[in-house]
Order: sequence, then C-alpha cells, then structure tokens
Amino acid sequence: MFQSFEVTSTPEKGPKRLAQLRGEIAREGLDGFLVPRADRFQGEYVTPCDARLAWLTGFTGSAGFCAALMDRAGVFVDGRYRTQVKSQVDLAYFTPVDWPETTLADWLKQALPDGGRVGFDPWLHTKGEMEKLADCGVELVAMDNLVDRIWADRPARPSGKIMDYPVEFAGETSGAKRKRIAADIKDGGSEAAVLTLPDSICWLLNIRGSDIERNPVVQGFAILHADGQIDLFTDPAKAEGLALVVQPWEAFEPALKALQGIVRVDPDTAPVAVSDILQGAGIEVQHKTDPCILPKACKNTTEIAGTRAAHLRDGVAMANFLAWLDDAASKGGLTEIEVVKKLEGFRRDTNALRDISFETICGAGPNGAIIHYRVTEETNREIRKGELLLVDSGGQYLDGTTDITRTIAVGDVADEEKACFTRVLQGMIAISRARFPKGLAGRDLDALARFPLWLAGQDYNHGTGHGVGTYLSVHEGPQRISRASDVPLQAGMILSNEPGYYREGAFGIRIENLIVVQPAPALQGADDRDMMAFETLTYVPIDKRLTKPDMLSSGERDWLNAYHAQTHKMLSPLVTEETLDWLTRACAPL
Amino acid sequence: MFQSFEVTSTPEKGPKRLAQLRGEIAREGLDGFLVPRADRFQGEYVTPCDARLAWLTGFTGSAGFCAALMDRAGVFVDGRYRTQVKSQVDLAYFTPVDWPETTLADWLKQALPDGGRVGFDPWLHTKGEMEKLADCGVELVAMDNLVDRIWADRPARPSGKIMDYPVEFAGETSGAKRKRIAADIKDGGSEAAVLTLPDSICWLLNIRGSDIERNPVVQGFAILHADGQIDLFTDPAKAEGLALVVQPWEAFEPALKALQGIVRVDPDTAPVAVSDILQGAGIEVQHKTDPCILPKACKNTTEIAGTRAAHLRDGVAMANFLAWLDDAASKGGLTEIEVVKKLEGFRRDTNALRDISFETICGAGPNGAIIHYRVTEETNREIRKGELLLVDSGGQYLDGTTDITRTIAVGDVADEEKACFTRVLQGMIAISRARFPKGLAGRDLDALARFPLWLAGQDYNHGTGHGVGTYLSVHEGPQRISRASDVPLQAGMILSNEPGYYREGAFGIRIENLIVVQPAPALQGADDRDMMAFETLTYVPIDKRLTKPDMLSSGERDWLNAYHAQTHKMLSPLVTEETLDWLTRACAPL
Repeated sequence: MFQSFEVTSTPEKGPKRLAQLRGEIAREGLDGFLVPRADRFQGEYVTPCDARLAWLTGFTGSAGFCAALMDRAGVFVDGRYRTQVKSQVDLAYFTPVDWPETTLADWLKQALPDGGRVGFDPWLHTKGEMEKLADCGVELVAMDNLVDRIWADRPARPSGKIMDYPVEFAGETSGAKRKRIAADIKDGGSEAAVLTLPDSICWLLNIRGSDIERNPVVQGFAILHADGQIDLFTDPAKAEGLALVVQPWEAFEPALKALQGIVRVDPDTAPVAVSDILQGAGIEVQHKTDPCILPKACKNTTEIAGTRAAHLRDGVAMANFLAWLDDAASKGGLTEIEVVKKLEGFRRDTNALRDISFETICGAGPNGAIIHYRVTEETNREIRKGELLLVDSGGQYLDGTTDITRTIAVGDVADEEKACFTRVLQGMIAISRARFPKGLAGRDLDALARFPLWLAGQDYNHGTGHGVGTYLSVHEGPQRISRASDVPLQAGMILSNEPGYYREGAFGIRIENLIVVQPAPALQGADDRDMMAFETLTYVPIDKRLTKPDMLSSGERDWLNAYHAQTHKMLSPLVTEETLDWLTRACAPL
Repeated sequence: MFQSFEVTSTPEKGPKRLAQLRGEIAREGLDGFLVPRADRFQGEYVTPCDARLAWLTGFTGSAGFCAALMDRAGVFVDGRYRTQVKSQVDLAYFTPVDWPETTLADWLKQALPDGGRVGFDPWLHTKGEMEKLADCGVELVAMDNLVDRIWADRPARPSGKIMDYPVEFAGETSGAKRKRIAADIKDGGSEAAVLTLPDSICWLLNIRGSDIERNPVVQGFAILHADGQIDLFTDPAKAEGLALVVQPWEAFEPALKALQGIVRVDPDTAPVAVSDILQGAGIEVQHKTDPCILPKACKNTTEIAGTRAAHLRDGVAMANFLAWLDDAASKGGLTEIEVVKKLEGFRRDTNALRDISFETICGAGPNGAIIHYRVTEETNREIRKGELLLVDSGGQYLDGTTDITRTIAVGDVADEEKACFTRVLQGMIAISRARFPKGLAGRDLDALARFPLWLAGQDYNHGTGHGVGTYLSVHEGPQRISRASDVPLQAGMILSNEPGYYREGAFGIRIENLIVVQPAPALQGADDRDMMAFETLTYVPIDKRLTKPDMLSSGERDWLNAYHAQTHKMLSPLVTEETLDWLTRACAPL
C-alpha cells in the first residue's frame, strides 16, 4: 500500500528543537534563521532527511517556511493550510502567518525594526526568492544549515536505484535531446547550463529514480555543456550496474568552479548557492530559465501514445472501482479510508502500477469541500446516503502519469448539488471542446471553465489546470490553465482540466480529465488561421445522475454523449464482468 | 450634414512638398525628419492645421507616420491601412512600411547603417515613443517642425468656443474633482501634474469645446497643483464670456519652468517636450500616468443616467432608421451613402444631436468585411438582395456618447451567413450576461465573446470592446475587453461589446451594444464573493431574421427575448407611428 493514513506531525517536540535552534542562532551572533519546506531541488515532495520544517515545527504541508527569531517564530502558510497549521504546531511557541498576504520582507521589517542579521542556507533558496527580500531591512547571511547541526537522528539521504528509461517510452534518445538543448544553450550565449531540477535531469538523460515517493526522479545536479556533454552529480551507488557515469555530490562545487565562459543558471529554480559559487570563482552567470523545462513539456508522439495507454489502463481500474463503489456505497457503512484502499487495489490489479501519483483525495460530504483534503484515521468519515463523494487520484505507470477526479452521487442527491455539478461539468466540457487561435495561453481560456458558475454567482478558488509529466511529476510547468499563466499552449503539452465547486461545511465537486494540446483538426467553414484544440486522454464515466439535462446546451449534451460512447467502446473489452453492466448503464446517452 | 463622402487626399502634391522638406533637412545638416500623424494632444482626430502627415504624403488614415530621409520616405501604416495607403501616396516617392511589424528603429538602422542625425518635433512625440528609438543607431535631434516651415497656406489653429458642461450632466463639480485628483497627486509625491490630454482637461474642468470634429474637446494644456488650483493654457478667445480663467498658449512653457518641487508627467501621452523643458529648468519629473484617466473612466451615477437617456434617444432614432431601411431596401436601388445620410437625418430629428461620434461605417456585402470601411463617392455600393448590411454609428449628445452596430439582412440571406451571425450574437450575449469576480480585467473576459466562433474555427481580428466617454471621446481608456488589457473592470466604466466576423470579399458581421460595469445584483444561491456584471445601455432590435434559433442555448434565447421585450417597452412610446408596427415585429420573442 502506497498511501498511509497516519499523521506524522510531532508538534510536542517543536519547543525543545526551537530552543536548540536558538542556541545555534545565538552562537553565530545572529538574530534568526530561515527554515523553508523546500529542499535543494525545489520539488513538491521532500525526503525525510530534508523535511526540516516538519521536524522543527510539526507542520507537514507541502509549502511554507519558518522564520525563527529569538523572540518569535513565524510559520508562513498559504490559504490551503490555515486550518491545518493550527493543529500541527505548538501555538505557544510558533505563530502562523498568512502568506503570501504577509510577505517575509514585511514581517522581518516589523519584527526587527532596528535591523539585524538572519541566517539562511543558500542551497534551499533561489535567487528569485532572495531578491524579494532585498528591502527587508535585515542582513541575510548565507551559511551552513543550523537545523542540520542540531538534528541528531536525521535520516540518511536516500540512495534509490536509478533505472534507464527506455527510448520506447521516451521517444527520443538522450543524445538527441542533449544535442538540441546544447544548441539552445549555445544560441543563448552560454557555454554551459547548470541543471538543478531532478525532472529536467531525468528527462534529459532518459533515466528515472526512486529517491522520493510519488515522483520517480533521481535527486541530483547536472552540468550540460554546449558541446552536448553532461556531468551528473549524485550518489554513485544509485547507478551501480548502469552505463551511466555519475560523479559524487562532493564533486559538484569544484566542477562549477572549473567551468569556462558564461554559465546559464535558472534564477527561479536553482539554489542561490550555485550563482554565488560561480560568481565567487569569477565566472559570468546568465540568469535564464532551465533550458529543459519547455522542451520537456511538449511531449513527442511516443510519450503521448504511452500516456494514452496509461490512461486506458488506469481508466479500466477506475471503471472497476466506480462499479464497486456504487454497489458498496449503497450498502452503507463505507468509510473514506476503505475507498482509498480499494481504489489503490484496483490500480495494483493492473500489475503496472509503479506508485500512486499523489495522495488520493477522498472526501465525503463536507470533507469534499476541503480542496487539498487527505483522509487520516482522525478525519475518516462514513459516507452517507444523499452525499457527494469526491475522489481525486492518479497512478504512476512506466508509460505515463494519470490524474483524474470524479464526484459520485451516493443515494439520492438534492437538486442544488445537481445544479452545481452541472455547471462544473459545463465548464469542463467547454475546455474539452475548445478550439483557439495558436499562441494563446492558459490565461486566455481560464474564463471558459468558470463562466457557467459565474452566471450563478459562483466560482472556485484554484486554477483550472496544471501541466502533467510523463512518468514524472504530476505537477509540471510551465503551462497551466490559469489567469496567472501567459505561456502559449503548444502541441504536446499535457494539462489537467479540473473545474470545481466547493461549499464549505456542505459538499465539494470537481471533475477532472487530462487533455493534450494538438493542432485543431480540419473543420468545414473554418477560417484560414492556425488553431489549436485539446485531445482528451482520460476516458472514465462521469456521473450522469448528478446532471440536470435541461441545463445543458445541445452542444454540451452531444459532447457528453460522444464522450460516454467512446468510453464504453474503449473500456468495455477490458473491464471485469461485474463492471460491464455498470459501464453500459453509466455510458448510456443522456 | 456632419459626414462627408469625399476623399481629400492630394497625393499629386506629395513629391514637391517632400522635395521642399528635404531642402530644410539639408539646410539643418540632418539626414531626415519624422512626420507623425499625431498632434500634440495624441488624440484620434486632428485639426486641419495639424494634419501634417496627410499634407505631406496624401495618406489620411488615423494613425501612422512618415520617416523622410534624403533617399527614401517610409510611410508607416498598420494593418487597417495597407490597401488605402497605396492609393493615397505617390509610390514613386513614398514607400509604405508594414508597421508595427517593422519598427521605426529597425527601419532607421537599415536605412542609415552608418548612423546619422534625424530631426523630430518634441511636441508631437511622447517620451515612451522616443524611448523605443533608443537603439536605432541614429542621433535624434529635437527641433522646430520643418513641415510647418514650408507649409505656406497652413490653416489657422482652431479657436472653437468653450462651453461650461453643467453639473447636472457631469454629476460632480470641477472643484470636487480637482480636490480628489490633487490629493492623488500629493499622495503620489508630486507638487503638480501636467495635463496634456484634452479629454482629461475637459473632464476635470467640466468644460467642452469645438476645436475638432466628432470629439467635443478643448485643445489645451493644463497644470494641476497639489492644492487643487489649475492653470489652463489655450487661446483665450475660446473662453470669451465665461468665468473660466485662460492663459495664452505662450504662457505654458514659462509656467512649466516656474514650477516648484516634483512634477508629474504622463510618459505615454505627454509630449516629450514637456519633460525636456522641466528637466532643463532643473525640475524633477515623476513619470506617471495622467491622474484623470482612471477617475474619468469610472462614471458617476449622474453620468450613467445621462448616458442611459442619450441611448434611449439614440435608440429611437435607430429604430426609426431600421424600420425605414427594411422598407427602402426591399424596393432596391438603395446605396450606402443614402443610408448614411438617412441615418444622420434620423439622429438630427432628435433635435439633440451635437455631432456624430465618428464617421458612420456602412458596408454592404463585401464592403462589410472591411473592418474600418468609410464609404466615399468612389466606393459607394448599391445594396443588393441577399446581402448583409453592416452599420456602425453613434451620436454625440450633451448627456452622453453612443456607439452602436447592427447587421441587417437585406432580402433572404444564406444559411452560412445566419450561422456566423448567430455565433457572433452568442458571443455578444455571453458578455452581456456575464457576472465575474471583482478585480478581473478585460483580458479575462475576451475569450467568452469568441468561444462560439472558435468552436467553428472562426475568429475576428479586433478587440471585443473599447471604453467610451460621456459626451467625450467614443474611444477612451484605460479599460478594454481585449487580451491586451489588464486594467481591472470597475463600477461605472462604460465599454462597447462588439464581437464580429468578417469573410473577405463576401460579408461582414458585427453586433455592438454599449454596457456599463456595475456590482452584480444579488442572486439566490450565489457565493459570498464580490462579483461585477454589465448593465446594457443600448436598446435597439437585433435582426432576428439572421439567427438560427436551434443554435442558441435556452439561456441565450431567454436573454434575447428579454432584451427585445425591454427594447419594445422602452422604445414603443417614443417611435413614429410607421415604426411601431415594425418595432413590435422586430421585438417579438423568438
């Protein structure tokens, strides 16, 4: 079982650890120290040895940081974690801060009005992040990590085995990738680029790893030279038995210092230490985005074919699960944790599941309204008749990464829930059907998903879609469907399409498919202009019992019926016998 | 009659004038001189004495410029004028340049590869504009205008009478406006602001003028001091008989030099001469947007009430016109010019028309596809059965400015035109019905108007809406409904809502109403979040004969029927007897 249901927070240990940290701060003659949740790879998941924020404070959220001063310790968390943080830290010692509404710079100015000196670990902060602190009124001192000094039983850095990612899945050899990325580095005026994002490195080298859960990356750093040669730095034990040449972690800093010419470093993702080391050695740094991010996001036909196969496999598991769920829920007594376990079981039954792609979100009734809900033994809830059940989950398969949300009616559901569900569905269909001029970005499309809700005075407080990797991170950039995203949508980019609606204390709705950007197919009567469209990757029934058919336009109804016809066609040869009847009913036209 | 149908271009005089200009360029030891279409007020309309570009080249478009060098003279025009420029300039002497695809900086670099010196009139260019030339490789020399030196019979600068704009229309006294704008200037850290936009000055002083056609502004400059005092510079003869204190044009430059403290100047609209004069006198300049632009755009309740009254009056004229048109067109032989004359006549019959708000666009059949078409004696076309007629027009009334487009079926129209019309209507309805979270900008809504066209592989190459003034400019900023506009939509902003569709050589469709941003009315089941909506200002029948009802959703059909019911209710007591029958038919539910 990949998912666990325990809370591993240890708030009771926070005060003593904070006192120890303050001892180190005082010994260094400082006024404070910054402890971010991020590790040196700036990823969504961190290994136990990098979970410094949780170790110090008890807070286990996926973003945030602690600013530990001598008289106060602010724990900065965003809107998702305002409630959680209060139950995870000792409030007598740690003070939650609403972030980013309150910036660290403003908080420091107010906490240290006469200035002061605050330490930070330059491997855990980016240049972009540090620049935002330029006006904070205190001196920021780069140094070794004070938490690491006092963390006696700190776990070891992981040394997960590396695997070659075969070109039958990658679709392009590492050599070919390195050649074109090296050309981009050279054209941009640099002699080398430092790569610090594990998913960039894994994509470029056609490798995958097992250092952290959910995300099959190799933690490491790399230097790609303008001639296409690459140096990889990580624990050489990870590559035992492979042809891959690996240099130890310790070789990274000397290798940086030995570089010649201008070196490209991403200011938004690389540790500021990298730029500092280079500049300290007299090397000119070009601050420019990681050259792998955009090419990695534009999947080739092999990757898209693999992703389609992964979605078909995952769709069969989901259909078997949904058929089981309808039956099990009707009997009563089912809990959220049982549902999560059963769903993971159906995915394991594919014999291809490498991991789940994130902790399953399974929320019944009011729990569905908590956007980033993770069920634990404490919050686990029995699913009652008349409730909605929101299940957001995904699988990591060798050929692709899935991410799907379905909201299911348990028993008879009230009309209000159905009206809201239908609006969410209309928004999700609008994105699915969209054709749009080439060059447009997610921000140009985001409103289409919200319009049916807006007309009813409703909305949802999250983006409409995020980028998705290929047997890599389930959240990858740069593309998004969001008012904040001005990255043009290019062919091959995989995105989620997941509008929702959340009524606090009552219910939550989200419907999510993955889609991939493609040139729009030819259409009679169309203008002579380049347009793009989305191909749907996810085929799993959407709960028609929750729709109010008279709210749908004929175009929306046609889309839904065609979607279900295609779903039935794809899944019916593959599902279990018990599921087939259910599938046929679930896919019947509206 | 306000509108004329002549072409006043004199391309045959261009070569001699260009030769004379080159004489002056040589005499100054320069390599060229810049002749923009803009005057010192950067407005859409220029007076005859400021029409330097047309005088020199023959080109009469509303935007562009000539870069006159010794061996070539580039006439830079945008996409709207690519065809027109070719018929308006002598191509043996002037070379049309595709702008902004080719920038002036790049063109100069190519034309003067070894550098050189090019003169310009600093009163006709903004600081923002000049900064874009920083890298052009030539020295730009500010000087008196060389065209003015050789323009022997140059018309006199206009001296149109100023009128007080009564507070019953303005809704706020000039004193109150000056107090709050002065506070903004002071809060921004300046002691005074230089105002060079005539519509800013007219709004602030509650005055209107008659210096140019279509746009009832007073051409002048002003200095608003942080204590609320204002100095106005223009021809004092304009204000004879008024209490308004006016200083002559000549007093402006000395007044600038006599200012104390930091002075605010808009880098994007003020002549660069203003900053140069201030800085030359040792005065610190704060480059910041004209402080009147945003407050002027947010109309108060009196201005909105006046605009509603103007639209009702204009709607009656439009209904009488459309009823006449249906009858006249059915008889055959009608031309575009006759239609424009008749329409202006119906507006004059209101006895309240001060001017038309722009040259009426009246295009039959293929002429409708020319987005900025103006009918002339040469292009005038007979309107034939089976064609679409696109009429975009507006009136300037004391209480408000109107702008409306209707596309009318003449006889039986093909299905393809109807399908396209229905898509345009669906987009126009989407904006009309929209509710959206407070803080969103035009770019967040633009896609809603295009989505029905996109689904059919179609689109239109212009924005969806522009801001509109109150008895001021029919095009005013800063708000727009456009992918390029990130200005949050605030209560009181008036906008056009005008999606379209154009098939070159065949037909054009546009449907345009004016709308005003308002807090969204309360709605049952709505979230507890601040939302905005649009109130429709224009009530005139939309040609239902062009809709394909089965393409409309129930919500769209409901909107159209409610719109027509309201139109009938408002207009039926006011139209002529002949029109009433037509109106009742035109407003019958679909």
